[in-house]
Amino acid sequence: MTVHFADRLQKAIDQKGSPVCVGLDPRYERLPEAFLSDAGQVDDRVKLDAISAYCHELLDVIAETVPAVKPQVACFEIFRGEGLKLYFDLVQRAKELGLVVIGDIKRGDIGTSAQAYAQGHLSGPSAPDAVTVNGYFGIDGLAPFIDIAREEGKGLFVLVRTSNPSAVTVQDFVDSDGNKFYEHMARNVANLGDGDGLVGQTGLSCVGAVVGATYPDEARQLRTIMDRQIFLVPGYGAQGGTAADCKASFRPDGTGAIVNASRSVIYAHTNAPELDWKQAVHNAAVAFRDDLKSIF
Amino acid sequence: MTVHFADRLQKAIDQKGSPVCVGLDPRYERLPEAFLSDAGQVDDRVKLDAISAYCHELLDVIAETVPAVKPQVACFEIFRGEGLKLYFDLVQRAKELGLVVIGDIKRGDIGTSAQAYAQGHLSGPSAPDAVTVNGYFGIDGLAPFIDIAREEGKGLFVLVRTSNPSAVTVQDFVDSDGNKFYEHMARNVANLGDGDGLVGQTGLSCVGAVVGATYPDEARQLRTIMDRQIFLVPGYGAQGGTAADCKASFRPDGTGAIVNASRSVIYAHTNAPELDWKQAVHNAAVAFRDDLKSIF
Repeated sequence: MTVHFADRLQKAIDQKGSPVCVGLDPRYERLPEAFLSDAGQVDDRVKLDAISAYCHELLDVIAETVPAVKPQVACFEIFRGEGLKLYFDLVQRAKELGLVVIGDIKRGDIGTSAQAYAQGHLSGPSAPDAVTVNGYFGIDGLAPFIDIAREEGKGLFVLVRTSNPSAVTVQDFVDSDGNKFYEHMARNVANLGDGDGLVGQTGLSCVGAVVGATYPDEARQLRTIMDRQIFLVPGYGAQGGTAADCKASFRPDGTGAIVNASRSVIYAHTNAPELDWKQAVHNAAVAFRDDLKSIF
Repeated sequence: MTVHFADRLQKAIDQKGSPVCVGLDPRYERLPEAFLSDAGQVDDRVKLDAISAYCHELLDVIAETVPAVKPQVACFEIFRGEGLKLYFDLVQRAKELGLVVIGDIKRGDIGTSAQAYAQGHLSGPSAPDAVTVNGYFGIDGLAPFIDIAREEGKGLFVLVRTSNPSAVTVQDFVDSDGNKFYEHMARNVANLGDGDGLVGQTGLSCVGAVVGATYPDEARQLRTIMDRQIFLVPGYGAQGGTAADCKASFRPDGTGAIVNASRSVIYAHTNAPELDWKQAVHNAAVAFRDDLKSIF
């Protein structure tokens, strides 16, 4: 029987005790020294093998601590076909380890192209449990993802408010009633997410939203617009957001959001050079988990 | 010496005599019968080999008639790593045939992810001459593409107005002065495109815009906002736009836009079953070329 994405995610969060997600955004140059080649110039194959080895070991280390991971497909796609293969290998490995996998693909298109993205990136057991998507096209672009989410117990997170500095130059465009464009996008997402068969037992929809942690007042406001959405919250840690900042993204009962950290966990060796890298990553994952647990 | 993207594109348009682009959005099921397997169920490898054979032959047929092609990466990415390999093989083959290649990737992200997309999809001789991108993040998301465009004589087309029915539910969000969101995006694109070293000898920028052909009044209005942008115009043919509709996207001298058609050319055999598929495709490409030539 198909279990709703929000219910599966909540179960995983309850098991690990904290609503956290580790982003897998690996860059060869930043891997622990043990994974770097001694040769001066290294080719893509060497880099990709190193990233593969590191990510596989990393998944083993963090799987006991966190409920979810978010692989960033761009970091694999830079290696083109071979990179995309590794991305899907890691998705599969993470699922075998019991992790909920959110593919950070931010795709957006229409018609058969949107269908192809949804089919390739979200459908079937070898695809992630959920993906991030761009809602610039409206429902035409999102429908293929929503259909698969409904049928297969998968999820999607639509970009609403991003955490980068220049987000405001686009997303703060404001109408005559003072509503901002990202609030308009949020209303669209809330409406779409209320569709037949999309809301699970937890009262949350499989259509979620990406809401940056660097703007807690906005997250609070968006929570009132999107009461059934799971918020995927980037921007914690390296991008400046604190656990307290993230609290605004949750519902009062502590459900309805999952907070992502990437660099502070996967490059933990950089900040703790005295430790074995696995110990450093484990410590960082535990600290991240406990930090987010502490806000409720 | 690096030649500016807009200058290269205009030269190719002048050589072929018409500002047209053929979209490569291949789906196995719609290929000419000669490329379909007799077996009932076919696996991805068989489908991909058929798509590869068809697209390679198609490129040979259309290269003499049209100046540019726009491969749609989603149709390849549905086959994951192997599909992405084929996408880049076709990009390379099209470039060898002298075609200007616009990769329809619609990527959008920030930071190292945006850098990775720009590096993987736009940089170097094996990458397309230009790509489509999503501007939802503002300049943070576009800067890595713009940097490569400036350095390497490449181009980008930012999504401004899309041609699908539900585009209005997002892009028509309007401010207190009556400006719509897509016009706001257009102003951002115009400002970005005026940056140092971005405007070529033709007076056009390497930062262009995607402007759907199904709304000619809007294209006319957008032309006044984006005077230095090349418009990439989807929606001709199968999506309902006519050559007359497309005229609004051009500058008065007939430069500044390129019109895309996909299905009406690459599936021309469907509408002319009495012809050899190559003849059908050739005829459709010539008709498309001449139709767009006729508006000036």
